[in-house]
Amino acid sequence: MNTTAKLLSRAACIAALALAPAPLALAQEESEFPPTSAAIVKAAPDSAWQEIPAEDLLVMTLAPDSSGNPRRVVIQLIDAPISEKWVANIRTMARAHWWDGLSIYRSVDNWVVQWGDGEEDEGDRTRPARPLPDGIVPTAEEDYTIAWQPGLTGTLWGADGRRAAEAAVNPRQDKMAAKGPDFSDPYAEAFGYLRGLPIAAELQNHVVTDGTGMSNRPAKVWPVHCYASVGVARDLSPDAGTGAELYAVIGHAPRALDRNIAVVGKVIDGIEHMSILPRGTAAFGVYETEAEHTPIISVRLASELPDTERPRFRFLDTESESFAAYADRTANRYDPFYRVPAGGADVCNVRVPLREIED
Amino acid sequence: MNTTAKLLSRAACIAALALAPAPLALAQEESEFPPTSAAIVKAAPDSAWQEIPAEDLLVMTLAPDSSGNPRRVVIQLIDAPISEKWVANIRTMARAHWWDGLSIYRSVDNWVVQWGDGEEDEGDRTRPARPLPDGIVPTAEEDYTIAWQPGLTGTLWGADGRRAAEAAVNPRQDKMAAKGPDFSDPYAEAFGYLRGLPIAAELQNHVVTDGTGMSNRPAKVWPVHCYASVGVARDLSPDAGTGAELYAVIGHAPRALDRNIAVVGKVIDGIEHMSILPRGTAAFGVYETEAEHTPIISVRLASELPDTERPRFRFLDTESESFAAYADRTANRYDPFYRVPAGGADVCNVRVPLREIED
Repeated sequence: MNTTAKLLSRAACIAALALAPAPLALAQEESEFPPTSAAIVKAAPDSAWQEIPAEDLLVMTLAPDSSGNPRRVVIQLIDAPISEKWVANIRTMARAHWWDGLSIYRSVDNWVVQWGDGEEDEGDRTRPARPLPDGIVPTAEEDYTIAWQPGLTGTLWGADGRRAAEAAVNPRQDKMAAKGPDFSDPYAEAFGYLRGLPIAAELQNHVVTDGTGMSNRPAKVWPVHCYASVGVARDLSPDAGTGAELYAVIGHAPRALDRNIAVVGKVIDGIEHMSILPRGTAAFGVYETEAEHTPIISVRLASELPDTERPRFRFLDTESESFAAYADRTANRYDPFYRVPAGGADVCNVRVPLREIED
Repeated sequence: MNTTAKLLSRAACIAALALAPAPLALAQEESEFPPTSAAIVKAAPDSAWQEIPAEDLLVMTLAPDSSGNPRRVVIQLIDAPISEKWVANIRTMARAHWWDGLSIYRSVDNWVVQWGDGEEDEGDRTRPARPLPDGIVPTAEEDYTIAWQPGLTGTLWGADGRRAAEAAVNPRQDKMAAKGPDFSDPYAEAFGYLRGLPIAAELQNHVVTDGTGMSNRPAKVWPVHCYASVGVARDLSPDAGTGAELYAVIGHAPRALDRNIAVVGKVIDGIEHMSILPRGTAAFGVYETEAEHTPIISVRLASELPDTERPRFRFLDTESESFAAYADRTANRYDPFYRVPAGGADVCNVRVPLREIED
């Protein structure tokens, strides 16, 4: 997920590695440059790393690959109130072991890999053939976006005054608007991160409480589609899906899907087990034969796994100063490889740093 | 490349197909909606489709896959003067059959797949072990961007006045700026398409010749990295690569690479033969063993292939009214699936429509 690999030719890769751990010559050269985004992440204090609660981690075990290697995919579920009803359904289905024995049945290049019940295509059924467990919550299109709530904290960036979120929500707004990188977004008035996952926002003017004038604050927010985002497949409007059929993005962020479908989280480990699957050749990228499906052994909440099998991850607090510095540098890389700072970044290229906690 | 597959659950996929060729009920429902982007492309006149010259197509034949299926990758080379020196080198190397017998030796998830000479890692060599053919042109970082030239035609969109390109270059600018979709770009002042491939631009103010005031026109332009873009791997600055080592993007557009590395074209057919390759597990995503490499049988310019083996493609003229309408609709999808138009789009999500010409 958070690769820092660069487009070095192979010789340079090896040369760069051969130089580690940094003889004097390299150290001198590096001093000409500001800290890289990787260095900023490395220097972040322990307090800036937040552990993802075990009930927010979904652990999907696929059948071993053709060489017998295990395949584990870990999904971080998004926090309430965003996509709350779908996430509740997903927890209910995981506890009921609903996905066990089902499969990945669809793969479309530069689009998505999709899993659930591949046997839902008979007659006019628009639900999976396998009965859903009790307690599934009805969902509706209105819940694709939520009203901003006072208790909700997060970081939002707008590229200019028109798009700025209020300072209380976004302590870095002034710097960004005045002289910082361009974080504009053609898909939303502002974007940001809510406890490690990307969101976008619609803003509204309001009177600043200290009487200094008008400002903007978020009115509505919604989760956005980035590479590895997980969403809820559905039928045509007004169906909004239950969470039984899920997909992961394996290409350029399909942002037009934002507010049209529920994003429920992000694959934080093992996305490559999905992205390298052969593409389906039947309509809509569904596999033509059952033999092409990838069997799902199990899907569990990490909180239901024994301690020894429970993965643990921390993300760099997206409200921390370390994250702000990391985002700034990501938008303006300047080092022995990058000589022209981009001057900006989109929400999906500011990838939230993650660390697996090894016991 | 230009999939229109949507995130329907499988039942809906089948249902949608079952409805084709559109009984009356569907036709009536469709009338509530504006033409889809697919319908706009379908309705484009023949005059809006431009054939890609055979000397701009690079045909890469990989070894058959493990099931014996052939793997062909077709790359559209970008037109001069953009990245002109690297493209000249690539043509020279293709004519010399330089890549034949080499391999894909690197694959990094959500980043790139890279090919060329995997044996360049000995000692301090920063060039491939295999000697390059005669006639390779020296390249330099300055050539990552080019000055806008009067003879150069293309379409550029800026999101607002500050970013607008002049009307002569962009006849759709006024509409876009006033009430059209948001085509802003955090990475550049404007973006557009030059004969089918995406570019970005830096603008400058100038006096409009009719005396009505100041306007903007492009000053510099450069090719941008999107999904499937092909670029030239290189060593650390100031090395700019020759074109011998190439990569294709297989993830979210790595736009920070723009102006830092030469983009030379785009995979227009067969990207899935690259994107599904297992990821490399050695440093920088290089494969650990030779056995993991994907052998390259041959790389040829289409113009050097016999007629019967020569692929032919047309793209939807990016300066046509059909393309403008397609881009508008792509930024504002509204149909039985998409109920909230995005209101904007980024350069990489307005995928240039392509058609293979079957003999």
